[in-house]
Amino acid sequence: MSDAPAEIETLIEMMAKLPGLGPRSARRAVLHLISKRGFLMQPLAEAMQAVAQTARECLNCGNISTAEICPICAAEKRATGELCVVEDVADLWAMERAGVFKGRYHVLGGTLSALDAVGPDELRIPKLVDRVAAEGITEVILALNATIDGQTTAHYIADQLEGRVNVTSLAQGVPIGGELDYLDDGTITAALKARKSL
Amino acid sequence: MSDAPAEIETLIEMMAKLPGLGPRSARRAVLHLISKRGFLMQPLAEAMQAVAQTARECLNCGNISTAEICPICAAEKRATGELCVVEDVADLWAMERAGVFKGRYHVLGGTLSALDAVGPDELRIPKLVDRVAAEGITEVILALNATIDGQTTAHYIADQLEGRVNVTSLAQGVPIGGELDYLDDGTITAALKARKSL
Ligand SMILES: [Zn+2]
Ligand SMILES: [Zn+2]
Repeated sequence: MSDAPAEIETLIEMMAKLPGLGPRSARRAVLHLISKRGFLMQPLAEAMQAVAQTARECLNCGNISTAEICPICAAEKRATGELCVVEDVADLWAMERAGVFKGRYHVLGGTLSALDAVGPDELRIPKLVDRVAAEGITEVILALNATIDGQTTAHYIADQLEGRVNVTSLAQGVPIGGELDYLDDGTITAALKARKSL
Repeated sequence: MSDAPAEIETLIEMMAKLPGLGPRSARRAVLHLISKRGFLMQPLAEAMQAVAQTARECLNCGNISTAEICPICAAEKRATGELCVVEDVADLWAMERAGVFKGRYHVLGGTLSALDAVGPDELRIPKLVDRVAAEGITEVILALNATIDGQTTAHYIADQLEGRVNVTSLAQGVPIGGELDYLDDGTITAALKARKSL
């Protein structure tokens, strides 16, 4: 409740549903938009409308683009035999920003979670198994978050693919620029176990 | 840079300009919207478009509504002779939520600030002086934030209105439910100075 006119109240309630915004920051955001309604709010509404009408999930990998098959799946030169499995599209974008991976992706759409009743069929795991065979994949790289659910999901996928393809996962360790004093025990333990000779 | 398609990248950049959202949370918000594009993103785009085209600042007080003169200024029963001065529309809404003030408002649109080069003419201060005479105001209640800029602005307005009208301001003190241990020294000092007999 903001005691704003009904149209504005409706807009605030919708904005408050976005991750990272609560009711108070949604009110602030809407007031900011209204104060810049000509050169920010109107263009933003139009950009949002355009994306709502054109964005879609790639039928093959789950990436977001404006095509049925996303540009990464469609790029012939990315058929390297390597398939990188990520939890969501934001992780795919993070990998692409790093610019180091040249193969294709598979977006699960989350992680297995007993608590939230997310099983393999709620994710894109059956499709992953299909793709490994259909696309001649030689290595599946699991780039899942280092959380309990992420690691549970990684182990489940590794079991499903056992004997069919080489399954690897991102190394765990000290991040570049990371100071030991600020790292949690789990990271230090993982980094020690995976130590390398110089 | 998100490595997203251009339309989506544009949308993320616009969203990142909203107060409370940075580039990373804007990406998350846009992905969330796309995943719910039918029942959240499309309606949100339409609601935003509607508000962009209809919302405007009240010519009298600066409140936001869909009319040239806002419902509060237009309500005859709110002509109580009391005028409450606030910094922005969010503060007006907060006062209305409290439901205790029955007069009209005047939204300054900020505070005086030497640092940001905001002088009286950048705010709605000349209009405030006009309204005091034109509307037969008997009391101006300053409900400005308890910040340095807010208090500087309060003193400036009090000077401008001296001899024309009774000027008061919200009491400072311990908030309801507030624990002394969590309050800053300034609040405790103000509360002690303004102590009352029981
Ligand atoms: Zn794809
Ligand atoms: Zn008004």
